[in-house]
Amino acid sequence: MAKNNKNNNFGRFENINPVDYRYQPEGRAAELLSEKARIIYQLKVEAALAQALAKHGVCPRRAAAEIGEACKKVTPQEVYAEEEITQHDIRSLVNCIRRKISDSAKPYVHLGATSEDIKQTAESLRLRQFTQEVLVPELLQLEKTLITLSLKHKNTLQIARTHGQHAVPITFGFAMSEYVSRFGNRISGIKQAASQLRGQLSGAVGAYNAMSIIIKDPIAFEADALAILGLNPSTHSTQIIEPEYGVDFANSVISAFGVIANLADDLRHLQRSEIAEVAEKFSSAQVGSSTMPHKRNPWHFENIKSLYKASMPRMITVYLDQISEHQRDLTNSASSRFTMEVLALFLFAVKRMNKYISALVVDEEHMKKNIDANKEMIIAEPLYLILASHGHPDAHEYIKQLTLESQKTGKPLRELVFSDKKLASYVKKFSKEQEEIIRDPAKYTGASVQKAEQVCAYWSKELGI
Amino acid sequence: MAKNNKNNNFGRFENINPVDYRYQPEGRAAELLSEKARIIYQLKVEAALAQALAKHGVCPRRAAAEIGEACKKVTPQEVYAEEEITQHDIRSLVNCIRRKISDSAKPYVHLGATSEDIKQTAESLRLRQFTQEVLVPELLQLEKTLITLSLKHKNTLQIARTHGQHAVPITFGFAMSEYVSRFGNRISGIKQAASQLRGQLSGAVGAYNAMSIIIKDPIAFEADALAILGLNPSTHSTQIIEPEYGVDFANSVISAFGVIANLADDLRHLQRSEIAEVAEKFSSAQVGSSTMPHKRNPWHFENIKSLYKASMPRMITVYLDQISEHQRDLTNSASSRFTMEVLALFLFAVKRMNKYISALVVDEEHMKKNIDANKEMIIAEPLYLILASHGHPDAHEYIKQLTLESQKTGKPLRELVFSDKKLASYVKKFSKEQEEIIRDPAKYTGASVQKAEQVCAYWSKELGI
Amino acid sequence: MAKNNKNNNFGRFENINPVDYRYQPEGRAAELLSEKARIIYQLKVEAALAQALAKHGVCPRRAAAEIGEACKKVTPQEVYAEEEITQHDIRSLVNCIRRKISDSAKPYVHLGATSEDIKQTAESLRLRQFTQEVLVPELLQLEKTLITLSLKHKNTLQIARTHGQHAVPITFGFAMSEYVSRFGNRISGIKQAASQLRGQLSGAVGAYNAMSIIIKDPIAFEADALAILGLNPSTHSTQIIEPEYGVDFANSVISAFGVIANLADDLRHLQRSEIAEVAEKFSSAQVGSSTMPHKRNPWHFENIKSLYKASMPRMITVYLDQISEHQRDLTNSASSRFTMEVLALFLFAVKRMNKYISALVVDEEHMKKNIDANKEMIIAEPLYLILASHGHPDAHEYIKQLTLESQKTGKPLRELVFSDKKLASYVKKFSKEQEEIIRDPAKYTGASVQKAEQVCAYWSKELGI
Amino acid sequence: MAKNNKNNNFGRFENINPVDYRYQPEGRAAELLSEKARIIYQLKVEAALAQALAKHGVCPRRAAAEIGEACKKVTPQEVYAEEEITQHDIRSLVNCIRRKISDSAKPYVHLGATSEDIKQTAESLRLRQFTQEVLVPELLQLEKTLITLSLKHKNTLQIARTHGQHAVPITFGFAMSEYVSRFGNRISGIKQAASQLRGQLSGAVGAYNAMSIIIKDPIAFEADALAILGLNPSTHSTQIIEPEYGVDFANSVISAFGVIANLADDLRHLQRSEIAEVAEKFSSAQVGSSTMPHKRNPWHFENIKSLYKASMPRMITVYLDQISEHQRDLTNSASSRFTMEVLALFLFAVKRMNKYISALVVDEEHMKKNIDANKEMIIAEPLYLILASHGHPDAHEYIKQLTLESQKTGKPLRELVFSDKKLASYVKKFSKEQEEIIRDPAKYTGASVQKAEQVCAYWSKELGI
Repeated sequence: MAKNNKNNNFGRFENINPVDYRYQPEGRAAELLSEKARIIYQLKVEAALAQALAKHGVCPRRAAAEIGEACKKVTPQEVYAEEEITQHDIRSLVNCIRRKISDSAKPYVHLGATSEDIKQTAESLRLRQFTQEVLVPELLQLEKTLITLSLKHKNTLQIARTHGQHAVPITFGFAMSEYVSRFGNRISGIKQAASQLRGQLSGAVGAYNAMSIIIKDPIAFEADALAILGLNPSTHSTQIIEPEYGVDFANSVISAFGVIANLADDLRHLQRSEIAEVAEKFSSAQVGSSTMPHKRNPWHFENIKSLYKASMPRMITVYLDQISEHQRDLTNSASSRFTMEVLALFLFAVKRMNKYISALVVDEEHMKKNIDANKEMIIAEPLYLILASHGHPDAHEYIKQLTLESQKTGKPLRELVFSDKKLASYVKKFSKEQEEIIRDPAKYTGASVQKAEQVCAYWSKELGI
Repeated sequence: MAKNNKNNNFGRFENINPVDYRYQPEGRAAELLSEKARIIYQLKVEAALAQALAKHGVCPRRAAAEIGEACKKVTPQEVYAEEEITQHDIRSLVNCIRRKISDSAKPYVHLGATSEDIKQTAESLRLRQFTQEVLVPELLQLEKTLITLSLKHKNTLQIARTHGQHAVPITFGFAMSEYVSRFGNRISGIKQAASQLRGQLSGAVGAYNAMSIIIKDPIAFEADALAILGLNPSTHSTQIIEPEYGVDFANSVISAFGVIANLADDLRHLQRSEIAEVAEKFSSAQVGSSTMPHKRNPWHFENIKSLYKASMPRMITVYLDQISEHQRDLTNSASSRFTMEVLALFLFAVKRMNKYISALVVDEEHMKKNIDANKEMIIAEPLYLILASHGHPDAHEYIKQLTLESQKTGKPLRELVFSDKKLASYVKKFSKEQEEIIRDPAKYTGASVQKAEQVCAYWSKELGI
Repeated sequence: MAKNNKNNNFGRFENINPVDYRYQPEGRAAELLSEKARIIYQLKVEAALAQALAKHGVCPRRAAAEIGEACKKVTPQEVYAEEEITQHDIRSLVNCIRRKISDSAKPYVHLGATSEDIKQTAESLRLRQFTQEVLVPELLQLEKTLITLSLKHKNTLQIARTHGQHAVPITFGFAMSEYVSRFGNRISGIKQAASQLRGQLSGAVGAYNAMSIIIKDPIAFEADALAILGLNPSTHSTQIIEPEYGVDFANSVISAFGVIANLADDLRHLQRSEIAEVAEKFSSAQVGSSTMPHKRNPWHFENIKSLYKASMPRMITVYLDQISEHQRDLTNSASSRFTMEVLALFLFAVKRMNKYISALVVDEEHMKKNIDANKEMIIAEPLYLILASHGHPDAHEYIKQLTLESQKTGKPLRELVFSDKKLASYVKKFSKEQEEIIRDPAKYTGASVQKAEQVCAYWSKELGI
Repeated sequence: MAKNNKNNNFGRFENINPVDYRYQPEGRAAELLSEKARIIYQLKVEAALAQALAKHGVCPRRAAAEIGEACKKVTPQEVYAEEEITQHDIRSLVNCIRRKISDSAKPYVHLGATSEDIKQTAESLRLRQFTQEVLVPELLQLEKTLITLSLKHKNTLQIARTHGQHAVPITFGFAMSEYVSRFGNRISGIKQAASQLRGQLSGAVGAYNAMSIIIKDPIAFEADALAILGLNPSTHSTQIIEPEYGVDFANSVISAFGVIANLADDLRHLQRSEIAEVAEKFSSAQVGSSTMPHKRNPWHFENIKSLYKASMPRMITVYLDQISEHQRDLTNSASSRFTMEVLALFLFAVKRMNKYISALVVDEEHMKKNIDANKEMIIAEPLYLILASHGHPDAHEYIKQLTLESQKTGKPLRELVFSDKKLASYVKKFSKEQEEIIRDPAKYTGASVQKAEQVCAYWSKELGI
């Protein structure tokens, strides 16, 4: 669509978008996300169309085979060069295929299809392929790492924090199982949404006008042709597939990005100088700061958060692209080209998270130290609960007052409670376990261990890892 | 949380947000979406907790019954007044319940729960209740109206438009079946997402610390207590339910809003003076414009689009609220209070759409007139296809050139084709149906009728309407 | 526009949006932001129009006076009741005015104007009035508080943090002067943007069609009439004022909200249990947590951040509303009604910030303690710099290696440097001030004090406070 | 920061982001927006720093000259290769410079600066340079084209449209002058915002800690060093420049993008088959649709709108990046790298708009035809106004009733008015001009011509074009 005189070959540093010079995917991911892949997948759809036409007797098998072969040979360079003349991307693709086949096969290239049948179907196919072949395996890798971390530290004591304030003890494994669960849930969502991506072969306005000229039951033909590619047809289509399949897929990805952004934030804060419970692994050649050589910054986690901030607002574009006038306007065309970039950024963030979580330095000693700092205060909650469960009518307020007294006088809350005459009748009823928790608040971790185990087992099974 | 000296009773016009003075819900919707309902649902959860404590032998049945009764009597006024003193919303609620019961029941109010157990569970319950009782019935009502409209006009000819340009003929029923399908799909999504909303009773940091003091298996207890309310527990929770259930629900609503915004846009444009295919019904007392009395503006559809623009970006808030530090920070608290407003706006838009779609004026004659305007050109596509299907190696380009000639000379394309010697051998092969379409392009509607019927049947069955 | 059967009077808790039941403005702010004010300001514009018509000889002075009087008496209740019949807001307003005047004055009500002339001008006027009368004074109040805090603590030592890691020392006053500067800059921006809000009186499509029927130079008339209200006309208008004046105003507000959200975040984190450098003031009756009585949560700062998250994404709506088809579509009408809510939330956040910053508990001792924790490491930076400034060719790397050695051996970095033979020739060149900093890194605060003073002085002068 | 094994040289079609394979800038724009430029500008800042150090006597002039020369030679390839070892971008840059100079010059490279002093200042410089050298000239080019178009068609009659409905006549030049004004206003804004971009040289936490070790008045030194680059210092900085300068710049660009998106929408709709008032120029080799050869789609305008939808939501990232914890977290680093892409997209859209506006096909005849379609109804507004201005107490309602009668009976409204006995006394008072408008409503264009001229003259002068 765009005329561009720029040379086709140039260096990485002449690129503008960081996904093309810095946060680049590698290997199969790079292949599938590139512009090259867009065209390769369009060629796959053209080939499948010819194959289906042959199957339905519209096109000689030989012609379909010729087209299939040609589709393997067309290059993006050819297509873009042709587009500078035609100003139309799919017509250019078709011309390139036609040049590689005999006159007798030519009429059957793209026959009955509209450009968007090819483009939209190709993108669904590519997205699904990328998700299944590249993304999900990486997601499962990270999930596995999280499960390992969670189980490894299921007994490692940590102070829980709400509002940034010390609350009551948990274990670090329990804390990590939050992400096992949330990320596991998102992996399920991504898999489900990717499996719902659809194709179409319904013609210029979705009513099969063209195909019905040459095929008796074009609705059945659409299903047949898409089945070759392993796709289901959109329940309805105009010139485009119903956008909501893509919206749900995007939501599943963006919200999964949100989960790892949250994890990155948690780890950044746990790495604060004063908290120091975890740390990113730091290689010896690495420079922490150009002028403060002693610093150990959580920059990989910061980077993940930053990539999230660059990606998440793109969801607005996805929502805006739901709206297309009548049987279609083209205002969702350029914008939808940015989808691959968001996937590249998400993949990059997932791999980076996996790498740095795998090597996470967990300072169990410092975790213990942080618990100890507020140990005395932690027992306020169990004290109030035990008193209440033994029938004290106003336990919450009573303990709150003793807490204030403890802060003023410096006397431990435990002592104030055990020496309080008004509480004596309740204190007598304390069970052994209850007394133990009051003596050693570090035991007040509730069902942390059990829950961490349960969550890890649930998601291992659910995701088959 | 907020101290506010403003009088509790005041007029509608002293409100600031249009949902409270202009786009107000009515009846049950108004009840369920109001601040009053927030507190009523919190009271329902406190009552269920007491009931579960009794069932598990922690609390006397009599106390649970007392608490249950008290929960029916507490008013928002009381709770807000109490909050001005305590500065804590749930503590205020608890105090209000306690005031209405005997000393022996007091210890069991809120026992083992944290504020957010009550608040988060109450909101899930309320959202689900609103969705099932109010929203889905309205959505189905609109879906029914769309199906009726689609079937009524399954044979009504309309020119399809892509890029705002006349393309090929369809039927208006086919065009409307796009929305039957997309909106049907979203209703499914909303129902599914609402059914996934969860509760929690896992204490201050999600590890059941408190509950494990008084209950042996607090994880099982959580499931039991929530079952009273018909909710499942979140797979994992910290101080808050995993946010992703809510994210998916919000996405289902916002994307459904996108579908009706798209429909509103389509209808706005079809009502343009030059197009004039549909019109909003216009009452005789109504004023179209304060200075142009002849105007008939599509303002209800404009209003729907506008409410969409006010609502859709709120999804960013939902995504931002996925991120909460450690076991929770409170920065998602105030922001989550705006959820009900978005639902109110969506409901308002759905009802308005239903009202004006139900009474939509469809000008079949003008639709026909618009088709006729480009009738001659429409046949370019079928001509190219028929030629190609009969083996013409370059049909697309050939027809394109004839089209240009037709535009220059004014001669009908049909004539140019039939009198073209080079095409004679192909023209001979035209089938009867193919010839008919070329003679009357209005017949070139593909599978419009069949597809409209199929889509309507599919969603009727799928949604049980 | 909306028909609504709901009773006009109802309780605060029947409202849906928190700005109408919880985060409510008071006094003059409540008046100016309410729906009531919208109508009052529209009446002001109708009155000004009549006055201008009289001045230009189109309308008898007596009629203008009658209209002016009537405009003071019309109530929102009347206008909304009338709208249920006419379905048109401004026509209803006009009808209400007309009912209160003599037949001879009637022709001159709204004469030559289109609805949007009145509505758009009224909103510009109201926004400007609100900004000047209510918002800016509150902003200046907060700016003053920030200046006071900054100057009070210009010498209070604090460790600076980048990446959440201890960096080098600053003073708390310097840290706060960041917000003096950024917030001061935003106040300037808000004032500037508000002063640019414009009016219009250019008729139904902006070309003065109507007015040119009755007035010779309608462009000059527009300027005259708006001057009565103290507004300039939009450089160009269609049915609506150029949206960009409003966009810039919204950007100035949203970005100012971002500054206080940032401040809220900083303070939240400084209040973390482990950091404990500041604290929100806490009243004795207040409940910190319903089950953890010892907690002191920074919830006012959390609330401010949360309101920001609810407000910031609305900017997307503002950008979307820039786009209006041809001389105007109405899809920016409902959405623009939410502007007042965002202002209410911003005002609420500013006042809350001012209240809690004014009473901020600053724990200077703990600030000192935090500096001391990494004191030894802080000197790495000045050491590297001093060595480099005295000509060491590789100071950065050299100090980095010594730092690692210090961490391994536990020997203070200072000692390692002073006993290193290879560094002896450089160490000799250290100035007295340089030595002092190495001996007491707490002195390594650079120009903290001077900069804090300078910034406070600059903004005091710039803003006239 | 990112390790990447991917080969540095690869083809355009291996890129992922469309700005790097499809919507690519050319020439100077490509240079300035590329990653290469980022590094070149950082080298410029390092050179300026050395120069300033020499000026202030800290560094020998010879050393500064050596550094300046070296800065011209360092390549991005070197810096990225070095970063794979150091994992730190600016330290790598510094190492690369150091390798190119003598030992005696080495200590003065980067002396006293922190990485962000270099990076942030370099980006401000680059953004300003790009804006002044590339962007503004292109903006002015488009503005000129718009002025030419507006003046050329200042008398070309067009029907104005509100709500998509025919309203009253204007001229096409008046319609275009809307964009002259709005776009002119945005150009002013962009220039103003770019001139406000600032630099910093305030060290790791903004308090000049490092620089104050080696320079007496580091605040003055900062101003001096930045003056070499033509920049002013940020009023305050931490490790980063106050973000609000960048926010305002981004807002100016995004809102300018909104203006051309609006223009694109208007032109798309005016090109609708039924309206057909304008058309994109269409080359003869171009393919309109792969299966509908007769179509003439407004795809360049669609493309512009689509690029806007991809770009506008990025503003959310800009706002999110306002928030940085304490003296800085790094979560704005990766995200800020996407700024250049948005500028590339905006530039692409501006150039495309200019190209297609310059060659816009305006169908004056069809514009006239569209006016004529509703000619009779147009006079309702002037009739009501004339009657009112002559004292009719209820002209609006009266004309509305006659309009309805006209629609029912088919009698022209004009006749109904002139034959209405109740109106006779008013009709007598009609002036000659008033009668003329009633006889020929096409004359009812108000001040269209005058306003178009005035607006064009104003912006020509304001922008010096």
